[in-house]
Amino acid sequence: MWNLARVDKAVRDVLKFLQPPPVRIASLGEALGMVAAEDVYSRVRLPPCPKATMDGYAVRSEDVEHAAPASPAVLRLLPGRILPSQSPGVEVGAGECVAIDTGGYLPRGADAVVEVEATAQLGDRVLVYRPVRPYENVSLPGEELEEGDPILRRGDVVRPWHLSALEASGYESVSIYDLRAAAVYAGDELVEGRWRPFTRWIVEGWLAEHSFKVVDSVVVGDDPGELRRVISRALEEAHVVVVCAGSAVGPGDNSVRAVGELHPEVQVRGMAIRPGKTTTASVVGGRLVLNVSGLPVAALSSLELFLKELLRAWLGARFTRGPVVRARLARRVTNKRGLRCFVRVRVYEEGGGLVAEPLMTGGSGSLRSLLLGNGVLIVPEDVEGFDEGEEVEVELYGPLG
Amino acid sequence: MWNLARVDKAVRDVLKFLQPPPVRIASLGEALGMVAAEDVYSRVRLPPCPKATMDGYAVRSEDVEHAAPASPAVLRLLPGRILPSQSPGVEVGAGECVAIDTGGYLPRGADAVVEVEATAQLGDRVLVYRPVRPYENVSLPGEELEEGDPILRRGDVVRPWHLSALEASGYESVSIYDLRAAAVYAGDELVEGRWRPFTRWIVEGWLAEHSFKVVDSVVVGDDPGELRRVISRALEEAHVVVVCAGSAVGPGDNSVRAVGELHPEVQVRGMAIRPGKTTTASVVGGRLVLNVSGLPVAALSSLELFLKELLRAWLGARFTRGPVVRARLARRVTNKRGLRCFVRVRVYEEGGGLVAEPLMTGGSGSLRSLLLGNGVLIVPEDVEGFDEGEEVEVELYGPLG
Repeated sequence: MWNLARVDKAVRDVLKFLQPPPVRIASLGEALGMVAAEDVYSRVRLPPCPKATMDGYAVRSEDVEHAAPASPAVLRLLPGRILPSQSPGVEVGAGECVAIDTGGYLPRGADAVVEVEATAQLGDRVLVYRPVRPYENVSLPGEELEEGDPILRRGDVVRPWHLSALEASGYESVSIYDLRAAAVYAGDELVEGRWRPFTRWIVEGWLAEHSFKVVDSVVVGDDPGELRRVISRALEEAHVVVVCAGSAVGPGDNSVRAVGELHPEVQVRGMAIRPGKTTTASVVGGRLVLNVSGLPVAALSSLELFLKELLRAWLGARFTRGPVVRARLARRVTNKRGLRCFVRVRVYEEGGGLVAEPLMTGGSGSLRSLLLGNGVLIVPEDVEGFDEGEEVEVELYGPLG
Repeated sequence: MWNLARVDKAVRDVLKFLQPPPVRIASLGEALGMVAAEDVYSRVRLPPCPKATMDGYAVRSEDVEHAAPASPAVLRLLPGRILPSQSPGVEVGAGECVAIDTGGYLPRGADAVVEVEATAQLGDRVLVYRPVRPYENVSLPGEELEEGDPILRRGDVVRPWHLSALEASGYESVSIYDLRAAAVYAGDELVEGRWRPFTRWIVEGWLAEHSFKVVDSVVVGDDPGELRRVISRALEEAHVVVVCAGSAVGPGDNSVRAVGELHPEVQVRGMAIRPGKTTTASVVGGRLVLNVSGLPVAALSSLELFLKELLRAWLGARFTRGPVVRARLARRVTNKRGLRCFVRVRVYEEGGGLVAEPLMTGGSGSLRSLLLGNGVLIVPEDVEGFDEGEEVEVELYGPLG
């Protein structure tokens, strides 16, 4: 049998030969969900100057120090009203105030805002019924966003608040990793219609959920020459080509051989993961070819245990995992030492705690285990298993139930 | 002040007047990430008959019962080879075997597969060096997917394995909820260029991340007539219109009034959430208009605490939350009784445990708190707060650190 490579070693060996990941300047709208390729810092200070956080009157706090419902402070109302994001043209002197809307900038002289609910207006007089502290109802410069605040670090998945901060800082674009992927499904049974390549959704869905653009999806038979041509063509367009066997567990000797004939700079044949130990990663012309099983669970295991790890190292990508819960095992889980194991579980509540039931039925092909399950337990290489009743960490991919 | 509605009551009141959510038949490729509008069950049994899970020979297990390295069982090899997804035309008799590839269907007579590594072939004889149990290396009918297995329940967010199971079952499409949204940003300061409507990314990014199609995004001034016309036009296209104030905390009296002039069937004015208590939800012609703050954190709070809850009730949507961790509070968090509070926190590791530091600086406008933070602590209405050192549940939206 093959000498199975540990995931961390496979990642290191492949990385040595992979080209740096391609980068693209994207508009803010395009960047959502993509992986940032650079560190970006705020270029603005928000608010730029003290800002009202309530509708009311800009005052000097010392003028209303002794205000109370029975003995309101009486202030002279200056003309005008400071609107949101408006810099005031007035100055508030002793005993004076000016109307200000939420978002308006505090005028010179004033150091606080009294909310309108604590006041009454009588002509050009304003009665204030309570004291305010200096800077009460005021947002101070830089509180919302400070110059130099980190907005994005390389490897962050871009989320809505990153885009808001970029726009607030005047950025109209941002550098993102721009990975294109192709998927090749190999097997005479697919070409001849004896089998539907339904594992394609696991492969292409996963790639889409991890910020790849899937540019090609091809079905091809087992003929090595044809396979070689198809993979070679896919490599012109795509930075990562996933070659998925038809209905077989293994990636298929033919498709691994076909990649071998493309003179890879490196080929890691067989990985210490379960399922998916026939996973083969090759680098051809600086681009990745990944041979995975045609069976859905084995293919997913290759993507989750190897490709995600590679993306972490290659892009610095920090994908946020699903919810992680601690649960008691309903049944023993055994592992072959030296393998990283991808165990589907169903997590449910029982007696005030969470229970994780391992779903091993049907092995690598078991769509059932993915549909019935809602979580994954990853058993590390140096752990032989977990006992019934032992508490383990499970990453949920679906709702509890 | 307004009488603030609790979230659950606001959801109930709005739901009474909302149209049923629109449904569309989508191709499998379009359905990824959308919310399923129907329950779907498997129509197939996989494998349809016993299937080899290894490359090797299909045998009768009783024939190799006593096989051992020193005394292999000797079987007669039938001609041909059973390929993946191929139904065999042969029958295996006593003392016979036939070559079978992973994924091939077991021929009549055989009840197990011996992997090729445990055999040697000599002409038309196969030596088998170990016994196999009945159905060893065989996947039984229905193990991978059973007829009638639930594939999707209404409200599920469609993930890759759902699509695989749909395709395996011969489905080419699936019913999904097809919600279109529009966003309106209101404020003279936006039209006059004194302020950038950067909260738009919070609004539109959130909508996109929750399976909405954003069909319109408009900036408009404070003029009530113009606002009314813009909202009215947006309602022709969109099922949900989010009206976002310019740079102000409140949704703006004008924009709430403009919605009021459209004769809503119901208007919930003010919600018991913090930040975002000026959130106003109206139903106009069966469609939702949601007025939110122009400040990013307050807008996000309205979407997370109200709109997400409404989608749960309206579509049955089960959005998978971010990772949930338990962490000790680095500082006390206080809540005004009766409010549901959206507290940004930074979670980090310290002394073998997790610590959550509340980030309250800058209030509703603080992009900083979203950028520096990586998690949200939701304080329920009936909790007055949490003490320093108390263990709380935090939902992470970014990596730990």
